[in-house]
Formats: sequence, structure tokens, C-alpha cells
Amino acid sequence: MRLITEDILEDIALGAAVLGTGGGGDPYIGKLMARQAIRDYGPIELYTLDELDDDDLVVPTAMMGAPTVMVEKMPNGDDIVNAFQAVGKYLGKPIRATMSIEAGGLNSVVPMYCAARLRMPMVDCDGMGRAFPEIQMVTHTIHGISATPFALSDERGNTVIMETIDNLWTERFARSVTVDMGAMAMLAAYPATAAELREAAVPGTITQAERIGQTIRRARVQEENPVETVRQAVGGYEVFRGKIGDVQRRTEAGFAKGDAYIEGIDDYAGRKLQLSFQNEHLAVRIDGEFKVTVPDLIAVLDIDTGEPITTEGLRYGFRVVVIAFPCTPKWRTPKGLELVGPRYFGYDVDYVPVEERYG
Amino acid sequence: MRLITEDILEDIALGAAVLGTGGGGDPYIGKLMARQAIRDYGPIELYTLDELDDDDLVVPTAMMGAPTVMVEKMPNGDDIVNAFQAVGKYLGKPIRATMSIEAGGLNSVVPMYCAARLRMPMVDCDGMGRAFPEIQMVTHTIHGISATPFALSDERGNTVIMETIDNLWTERFARSVTVDMGAMAMLAAYPATAAELREAAVPGTITQAERIGQTIRRARVQEENPVETVRQAVGGYEVFRGKIGDVQRRTEAGFAKGDAYIEGIDDYAGRKLQLSFQNEHLAVRIDGEFKVTVPDLIAVLDIDTGEPITTEGLRYGFRVVVIAFPCTPKWRTPKGLELVGPRYFGYDVDYVPVEERYG
Repeated sequence: MRLITEDILEDIALGAAVLGTGGGGDPYIGKLMARQAIRDYGPIELYTLDELDDDDLVVPTAMMGAPTVMVEKMPNGDDIVNAFQAVGKYLGKPIRATMSIEAGGLNSVVPMYCAARLRMPMVDCDGMGRAFPEIQMVTHTIHGISATPFALSDERGNTVIMETIDNLWTERFARSVTVDMGAMAMLAAYPATAAELREAAVPGTITQAERIGQTIRRARVQEENPVETVRQAVGGYEVFRGKIGDVQRRTEAGFAKGDAYIEGIDDYAGRKLQLSFQNEHLAVRIDGEFKVTVPDLIAVLDIDTGEPITTEGLRYGFRVVVIAFPCTPKWRTPKGLELVGPRYFGYDVDYVPVEERYG
Repeated sequence: MRLITEDILEDIALGAAVLGTGGGGDPYIGKLMARQAIRDYGPIELYTLDELDDDDLVVPTAMMGAPTVMVEKMPNGDDIVNAFQAVGKYLGKPIRATMSIEAGGLNSVVPMYCAARLRMPMVDCDGMGRAFPEIQMVTHTIHGISATPFALSDERGNTVIMETIDNLWTERFARSVTVDMGAMAMLAAYPATAAELREAAVPGTITQAERIGQTIRRARVQEENPVETVRQAVGGYEVFRGKIGDVQRRTEAGFAKGDAYIEGIDDYAGRKLQLSFQNEHLAVRIDGEFKVTVPDLIAVLDIDTGEPITTEGLRYGFRVVVIAFPCTPKWRTPKGLELVGPRYFGYDVDYVPVEERYG
């Protein structure tokens, strides 16, 4: 067990935003929320999965919805606690801890707010090792863990609890209810024991995010090349350098979907990259050819600061470096690729691991 | 207490279909379901509200969705029981009985299926004295009773439970989830004690439906004028006689909405009636002028048999008599009219009680 204190929050939020591949929520809002919670309720106990008893029940908490909305509508905190407590009440069992369902600027720290306020530990793991847009897209699903009881709460005081026959049905209902709640809601779901999570979860994500964030921060101070530092910290590959031209977006069924077109500079001059996203970056095409796809991670970094840019932050004129890096091996299994491979998202192309193309 | 046996079911379903004002579900499917349940599990105990103890908890059960879908997709029964038991489990309290939330060919008998299968009484009352399309449109709402915990279940085994800040939010979430469930779902909601229901419910609806159904059946046997018999049985007024011309329908947000245009015959020759519906008949305009509106009841009867025609049964060429009759006085209060008056449904006209125009 170690403590998450105010001074390491910024590193975690920044590093998690890199792992969030453009999604997982705005790191600025996430950081503010968690900081306030730590100031009000004290530091958060961060446990590894091995430090918990086999039967300890863990319930992840997260934000759900279109990140475009999130920027304007901040969660009020009661919504997170309501969702979390609704699952506990429904199960009629004590819950030992919370965790992140995904890595992301916001969704890595939402559980910290919940943990701080309820004076409860958080576990150093998540269900993706990155961020994905849909509810069923977690390593829990690969291991047969049900998303339900699944609770969604809004800032008004409404709560909806689902019990479904599979995790795809949870996604369907939860998406509609989230849209009704204003395209954003807070969720608690995927209750599982520590023993189950040792098989099913991606361990150490918070620590990994902290390490990445720390590296970026130090690089800035020491005036190194921050983009290169990030690339090395995540074990990734440079895919493109360019200037964002057109960005086309639509909010569709509660998702922020769209494409950004980036015109190459330096070594990439004369080439064009198309970046497709659905809350998260999903696929990179260069001159029409697929180069990187889900489940591997894509990060768009500010060329000067190395800061990751979220999908809703993509703007005309930004000069960026696109990097890509390998996903957790769990996603490269047949079951994993069925859940989050390129074909699930409608791309008629086989998955090729990023290191096979760039390694 | 008296018993509902197979031989009176048909009368109840038929009479309830008249009170259903075109909605409340298909009486044929309702009758089949309840009959099978009585054959399998025995007759149903029907209690009056006065026969229950003050604290006895009653939870209504019903079908929700577009009746157009209902015709093709029959509930499997487990869905009703799942919704009902989800509310009981969520409350953590024993439930004494079920009841109808509305009068209607199907929704008067859905609770009978639930009661028979769980060997539990049904109460002779409902929450409308007719049928209405939206969840908050019950006399319970006038009296401040919450719709939640509100459970929706589908035939696959999915259940969604809501706890909302008001009954309009329940309607919003439940409508989306019903659409996801295939535009039809079974619900259990509005838990209330017998003491509360003595204030808030419309008493005696099942007995009233049975009496209307009996009257129609006897009129047929005795070769009387069945339309006139129905009109007298409900204390109503003849509004129009004609032939259905055009019927325009659309399934919108899980509702069956539309208008039927009826060309006058006999005394009404040369005049034209526009009947607007949203699951239920809502308003009658004759030659462009509003003549009857919600919350008063409108029934479209087959000119020869006196059978009520549901909104989804309206067809070109049918010869019909349109009758109208007064709603329960609860709906004529300011709170009642706010919930279900013509302006709520978008008609820019004040409510005029049907007996003031036709009495």
C-alpha cells in the first residue's frame, strides 16, 4: 500500500491522458476533482491486487459519455458516490475498494474522488490498459465477468441500475440512459473479487501513468525533447509529424465521433494522415493505408510540449507528433480482438501489431 | 374478495378495451395470457382496497411500449415476473398484491398473469380509470407517489431498475430502455400501501370493465344494438358515425402516433372527423374544431358489433361509431389537467368536459 497525495496527482493525470489515447476524459477536470477530494478527505490508499484478500470485492467507478460534453458539464461528485453505493446496496455486500475501469485523464482519477470521499482504498489496476469507448470493452469481459449490477447516476439525483444477460446489452441500455442524462453520467459496475481481478484486470496502471507523467514533467524542466521522452516512456514508435488540417466531428448516440486530417511536415512532407476517433483514437491511415489500429494505442502529442491532445482538443493548425505503442497482450487474443479489434469498429482490415510495422 | 375465473376473463378484457380508449394493449393477447395462467395456476383472488391492511404493499405490473409491436411480439411471462420481483428485491420488503396501472385490453390482465403465477392477490383498482401513453400519467402522481423503484424487464432476461427524482425522469429513461428492448417491455412500478392507494387510485376498475364486457356480450346474444348498449354501459355520448378514410401512423420514440380521418355517414354525412392518437385516442376534431380531448375517454366502436377498435386496429374502410365519456374526476383537477390535459399533448385548446358539449 502507498498513498496518493496531491503532489503526484498531476503526474498520474498527465500520464493517464497519454494512455487514454485521446479519450478517458479531460485530465484537467479530473485533476481538479481528485485534488479537491484529497484536500477535503485526505490522501488515498493505493493497494496492489496482491495486497487484497481473495474475496475482497472491488467495484470500478468512471465517467461515461461524450467527452465533448464533459468539458462543459462537470460531475458534482455526489453522482459518483450515488452510483457506487447503488451497486453496494443492490448486491447487499460490503465493497472493499474501487478502481479505474480505464486509463484516461479523467477516468484514472474519478475513482480517487470516490475513494477519498468514502475513505476507502483504490486498487492499482484497470480494465483496459488504455481507454475504449464502449462498456463491454474491458478485459473483465474476456474473463467472463459481468458488467452488472451496473449503476448510472446523474448530477440531479437520478440512478438507473441494470442487470443484463451480457455486457453488450449493458452498453446498449447504458448508452441510451447516458444520452437522456445529458450525454454524460457517472457509473459503477463490474463488481469482482480480488482473486478474479488478478486474472482479469490489467495490473499497475496507476503506477505506470504516474511514471509516464513524471518523465514528461522532468523532460520539460530539463529542456529535453519532450515528444521523444514520451515516446520512450511508453515504448512507442513515431508514426507521423504534421499540422492538423480539417477536423470533422459529430456527437452520435452519445459518442464523440469523427476524423482529423493531418498534413505532414519535416520527413513526412507531402503525405496525409487520417485519424479516426470515437471518444478515443481508433485508427491511423497514411495516404489511405491503415498503419495503426485498435487495440494498439495512438497518442497525438503537442510537438513542442509533448502534452497528449484529447480527441475533443484536436484543432486546426496544431502541430503534432503521432505516436503508437503496443496494447496489453490480453487484447491480442482472439477474444480480445473480437471485442476491440479493427473489424468491431467497422474497419475492413486485419489487426497488425504496431511493432510488426514499426519495430 | 372474489375469484377471477376463466369464464369472466373475456368480459374483463373486452370491457377494459373500451376503457382503454384505443390503447392499453391488445385484448386478444391479454386474454390468452391470463387464461393460460389461470389454467396453470388456478383462479386469481381479487381484493378491494378496503379488504387490505393499511400497510399492505401493492406493486402494479404492466406492458410498456408501442402496441403496434405487441401484436407481433408476445410477452413470455417470465419478463413480468422478473420486473415484479426486481422491485420487491430492491425494496427488501414483502409485496402483498399487484394491480393494473391502467385499464386496457392487455394492461388490465397482465397483472392477472403475475398474480396467478405468484399465487398472490390482485387489487380491484387502477391508476388511470382509462389508458394513457406515458409513465407519469397516473393518479398516483397527483398524490405524490413516486414511480420508483421502477423495473423494466424484457423477454431475454434483461432488467433495468430506476430510482428517479420525479416521475417525468422515470418516463424519459424507461422510454429509451423500452425502445432498446425492442419497443416493448414489461414493468413493475409505483409501489404504494393500501392506505395510500385508497386516496390515490381509481377504485373498482376491474369490476367496471367486467360489467361493460358483460353488457356487450349479452347485447350481442340478444341481437340488440351493441353500439348503443356500449354507449349506455359507459354513460357516454355518440360523437360521430362514419367510414375510416386515411390512417397516418408513425412509431416515434417508442410510441405509436398518428391520425385517422373518418368520413361521416347517416346524420354525419358530409362532415369529417380527425382522430389523433399516441398509443391511446387523444383528441377528436370535427371539421377542424376540437370536440373531445383528453382526459375524457374516446372509444371507436365497430358499427355492427360494438367491439372497441384499438389505435393499431384502425383500418381504411372500417365503419365505426365514435363515442366519448367522462374521465374520473381526479383528472379534472388542476394537477390532473397539468399531467394529461390537452395542452400537455400539444393541443392549444382548453379542456371542456365532454358532458358540457354533448350532455
